[in-house]
Amino acid sequence: MTTAPGTFDPRKPLTPDGQTYHGDHAYAFYQIPVDARKLPIVMWHGAGQFSKTWETTADGREGFQNLFLRRHYGVYLIDQPRRGDAGRSSVETTIKPVPDEQLWFNQFRIGLWPNYFNGVQVARDAQSREQFFRAMTPNTGPFDMGVVSDGVSAIFDRIGPGILFTHSQGGGPGWLTAIKNDKVKAIVAFEPGSSFVFAEGEVPAPIPSAFDTVQGAAVPIEQFMALTRIPILILYGDNIPEQAVDLPAQDSWRARLKMARLWRDAVNRHGGDVRLIHLPEIGIHGNTHFPMSDLNNVQIADLVAQFLKEKQLD
Amino acid sequence: MTTAPGTFDPRKPLTPDGQTYHGDHAYAFYQIPVDARKLPIVMWHGAGQFSKTWETTADGREGFQNLFLRRHYGVYLIDQPRRGDAGRSSVETTIKPVPDEQLWFNQFRIGLWPNYFNGVQVARDAQSREQFFRAMTPNTGPFDMGVVSDGVSAIFDRIGPGILFTHSQGGGPGWLTAIKNDKVKAIVAFEPGSSFVFAEGEVPAPIPSAFDTVQGAAVPIEQFMALTRIPILILYGDNIPEQAVDLPAQDSWRARLKMARLWRDAVNRHGGDVRLIHLPEIGIHGNTHFPMSDLNNVQIADLVAQFLKEKQLD
Repeated sequence: MTTAPGTFDPRKPLTPDGQTYHGDHAYAFYQIPVDARKLPIVMWHGAGQFSKTWETTADGREGFQNLFLRRHYGVYLIDQPRRGDAGRSSVETTIKPVPDEQLWFNQFRIGLWPNYFNGVQVARDAQSREQFFRAMTPNTGPFDMGVVSDGVSAIFDRIGPGILFTHSQGGGPGWLTAIKNDKVKAIVAFEPGSSFVFAEGEVPAPIPSAFDTVQGAAVPIEQFMALTRIPILILYGDNIPEQAVDLPAQDSWRARLKMARLWRDAVNRHGGDVRLIHLPEIGIHGNTHFPMSDLNNVQIADLVAQFLKEKQLD
Repeated sequence: MTTAPGTFDPRKPLTPDGQTYHGDHAYAFYQIPVDARKLPIVMWHGAGQFSKTWETTADGREGFQNLFLRRHYGVYLIDQPRRGDAGRSSVETTIKPVPDEQLWFNQFRIGLWPNYFNGVQVARDAQSREQFFRAMTPNTGPFDMGVVSDGVSAIFDRIGPGILFTHSQGGGPGWLTAIKNDKVKAIVAFEPGSSFVFAEGEVPAPIPSAFDTVQGAAVPIEQFMALTRIPILILYGDNIPEQAVDLPAQDSWRARLKMARLWRDAVNRHGGDVRLIHLPEIGIHGNTHFPMSDLNNVQIADLVAQFLKEKQLD
């Protein structure tokens, strides 16, 4: 909370003097089913996204919100601080409507605009595509790993032990949230982005790509060890090349998947329990950057539910 | 949709050339109960607010979302275009974190900061107050009556006939939505703000207040007549003076209530069915600007449900 200097005058309400401002909180919408399992799931969106990621899909099917409610998990959908319904930011920002949807079509690995990948797990009608493009909302303040992980950690303080699902950009601050708060009992990370945290002295060499350079971040070993104490599942979809290509969208995911494998190995070397599944390697094809809303999202939910069962988190 | 000039180059994805942008849509979260009544309710927030208005209350009780789901109404909660999860605006804007909470405490008629009104229907603990302050989110583009009413009208096009609940600033564009779309079968307006629409030639004289001047807007008589064809209920809470006072927060509501009464009379003069209830006049005391989340919100829900039953909308 901040307070403006001076004294509030009720006859001059539009003057900030002496007034307060609360911001930078997360926002959560939750549903707890009858006969709920012991641990709820907190579902955290990625860059440019919000709770919608987990709600109905662009073509109108049920998303992970309902699919896991049906499996008797309590489900918390969040908007991270400075995004969507948690838009009250402590830092000023300017939002510009810059045309960017072909970037996202490619970056989210639906295809190479205007073509869809063969066998890609998305509906191709115009209405679904429009709904997909509209399922974005801008940052209302600067993206800040510390602020957003503090916000999500505060949710766990409020609700108690739970499972964290992250998507894309939420992956990096998701690791920080588990470091900050031991009420995070497991993480399922869908296509985590570039922010993997390593123990100091163990950060791998940066991995350049045609889009950007993926760099690990260093944290003290005591903090890193928190990530070895919980089961972690990482999922990546299809159409990620193993060799460098000159298309930024594809190549960025090659570099991220490569860094994710290094991270898995680093955590497991310290006694952790990280499993990374590149879906095509187990015969599941056509997934985009959004496995939780792709046409085969029930199959993906089955896979995740099986992991939670195996780890006795259900 | 807008399209930037030029041709999209997948090797330069951060350049807008040839890329598209969709924005200015509303966002809706909905739940349809088993054995739903024939008409769902679309719940529309006011200024600075979002779907939260109708969700859980600041002190953690159920809001109108659940209270009306329990009464077997389908419930749609919206974020209007350029607010919250519908943040993708077609117009650039800058968001400034200006301390303003004492303004809202007074303007929403909780009390005269830092004092609460005697008997006011809100929890007074610090946590509830903080949650109340945090239940705001900024505009991500200029507020535009046409854009927001188009967005909500599009929801009715999608879902079919329904009942519209509006709050505060949502009141004005709510009237426009009913003019634009005959699928709006009734309106319940909670403390509508200053934008009342009258037939051309029938706009009353502006009503000055210590906060601002309340002015009616003119629409062609054919458009105005749409508002005479549906039942409308308007509710105002407590602590609205009948005589002018020099406190902007109180006096602004005196002027709005006065204009609302003129509007009721104008619509009814043309054969309409507008009922305006100033809650203290029927013995319901202590309501703030948020009757749907005040401590007596079940009583308010009863009152509204009775109206819907009487008008055979249930």
